[in-house]
Amino acid sequence: MAVDTIRWTGKSVRIIDQTLLPGKLVYLDCRDVETLWHAIKTLKVRGAPALGIAAAFSVLLGMQSYKGNDGRDFVKTIEKMCAYVATSRPTAVNLFHALTQMRVLAKKNERLSVAMIKAILTSEAMAIYEEDRAVCRAMGAHGAKLIKNGATVMTVCNAGALATADYGTALGVMYAAKEAGRKFKVYALETRPLLQGARLTAWELRQNKIDVTLICDNMAATVMKNKGVDVIFVGADRIAANGDTANKIGTYMLAVLAKHHNVPFYVVAPKTTFDLKMKTGREIPIEEREADEVRRFANIMTAPVGVNVFNPAFDVTDNALIAGIVTEYGIIQKPYGTNILRALQAPKV
Amino acid sequence: MAVDTIRWTGKSVRIIDQTLLPGKLVYLDCRDVETLWHAIKTLKVRGAPALGIAAAFSVLLGMQSYKGNDGRDFVKTIEKMCAYVATSRPTAVNLFHALTQMRVLAKKNERLSVAMIKAILTSEAMAIYEEDRAVCRAMGAHGAKLIKNGATVMTVCNAGALATADYGTALGVMYAAKEAGRKFKVYALETRPLLQGARLTAWELRQNKIDVTLICDNMAATVMKNKGVDVIFVGADRIAANGDTANKIGTYMLAVLAKHHNVPFYVVAPKTTFDLKMKTGREIPIEEREADEVRRFANIMTAPVGVNVFNPAFDVTDNALIAGIVTEYGIIQKPYGTNILRALQAPKV
Repeated sequence: MAVDTIRWTGKSVRIIDQTLLPGKLVYLDCRDVETLWHAIKTLKVRGAPALGIAAAFSVLLGMQSYKGNDGRDFVKTIEKMCAYVATSRPTAVNLFHALTQMRVLAKKNERLSVAMIKAILTSEAMAIYEEDRAVCRAMGAHGAKLIKNGATVMTVCNAGALATADYGTALGVMYAAKEAGRKFKVYALETRPLLQGARLTAWELRQNKIDVTLICDNMAATVMKNKGVDVIFVGADRIAANGDTANKIGTYMLAVLAKHHNVPFYVVAPKTTFDLKMKTGREIPIEEREADEVRRFANIMTAPVGVNVFNPAFDVTDNALIAGIVTEYGIIQKPYGTNILRALQAPKV
Repeated sequence: MAVDTIRWTGKSVRIIDQTLLPGKLVYLDCRDVETLWHAIKTLKVRGAPALGIAAAFSVLLGMQSYKGNDGRDFVKTIEKMCAYVATSRPTAVNLFHALTQMRVLAKKNERLSVAMIKAILTSEAMAIYEEDRAVCRAMGAHGAKLIKNGATVMTVCNAGALATADYGTALGVMYAAKEAGRKFKVYALETRPLLQGARLTAWELRQNKIDVTLICDNMAATVMKNKGVDVIFVGADRIAANGDTANKIGTYMLAVLAKHHNVPFYVVAPKTTFDLKMKTGREIPIEEREADEVRRFANIMTAPVGVNVFNPAFDVTDNALIAGIVTEYGIIQKPYGTNILRALQAPKV
């Protein structure tokens, strides 16, 4: 992939400001935790796997300014900072997993020198980053076989290179199929209100010379009925123990439409997106964002001032609607309850 | 209704320029057929019943400039003009019905004086306008009983006062329920790409003090699942003999989602929206509009320049998904084939 979505420079977290795409490709150096928090909140960096990496890197940022010598005090600072980063966005579990992983590791080593703890945390954050790259490739390899030559594929939001440290989850499957020499066509849903499908997925797929057609979200049903869609891939922000999947708003819609049209509907997500503490999707917290994301575009009001808006950023797709979950371990199928547990206990890739 | 969507002033067709709503309420006087054609094409005036009226009024506009004395020649001019107006938009059948009605009437009277033919056509156009008002009220009365007190209602696009000469089709049902003293809540889908739900329906319902919440189209499924929706009403642009219904893109999506969530899905449309020449919805021509409606907003590109777009303005909902069609004659139910024929042969309201 030509894009470098997120990277630790040694002094800053360098991200692509995704709110400026596709118009401008601008890199932003976040030099303190507050700047990164704001970048996460405003979706300059987004996508569940990328948010996990951003969370790990936030610890590297935060520890830069710590000048003391007391390990225990240092770890307390880290813990506070992790609690702060956790307030940025509530739904993608990868963010919380990475914060927990960093926090627990820091705590475990609090008796060491500050310099040593910093070195351990840096190494861990880099491992999280590197693992995401390997995991993307593994998911791609497993999922690519679901795309036949000549297929028509559909996706929503952006679960691509711009959502990960490598070539993505749902889009990673497509990149892997292309690398395997298959030709296929993709319908990308624009994904209101923030148009990640139009701005990011259409851009990414074109950059990678994949045949993409952009549609509004409300056109997915008519495309399934009249154009024929062979398979749907979506990413995930959090997957419950029973396979219920929280992902970008519109995903559940797409899954219901897929069922009606007999189109297999696959979720593509790494281990870090599973949250086994959640028994079902009903327990997953769903972020609601501000009304003006729906009511205005740029500076233009597109709806009456003050009109009520319901703006959930995610929805939950019932496990029954999901044909399989493509992970780095392979494709998990029903019954999800037992098969998810079994897959996640497999050795690392 | 406080709004006066379309009116014949005696010299011009006065319409609300709906592309400027909700920001500005601007009336536009179309003083020649070309201006009106352009207003129809660019959706300054839209909605199937309003397009029927606009088509009838276009004849009044066109005949103003005719200065000759030969009835036959005058009727030829009318026929040419009707053929021109028919090229404005292809899907709403009301437009074609009104043009045919005016053209046939002119032809039938071609032996009369030009002044006499003009008087007959003026009277006919005004009758089409007045009938739409009566028909709106009749549909409202029949449909209102489907909204129980405390209900949650959903609609897409704008099938309200701004789509007719009176208080609308789908929204007319809501206005009638309100007049009957019922309290209820409406979720309005914004309706991409041109946001008629956000710009027009949210505005109309607020003007009429109906509790409305605006959502993006891709949120309809999660609202049905989590908020509970009791009934859905949509308008129609053309209904085939078997009940298959062409309406704004997103309608078919909504019907499939309604089926999955067991929500009754009603079409509200007058006799003039039926096209019995079409056996099924597959025969209904579907307008495809330009790519930039999806790719840009105002002057801002929201997708990569040149990316492929599929932009159908309408979709077709299979009759099996429709719980009933609310008309001025009452609510038509399955089997639609026979019941539509029977209802349309009933005496006029």
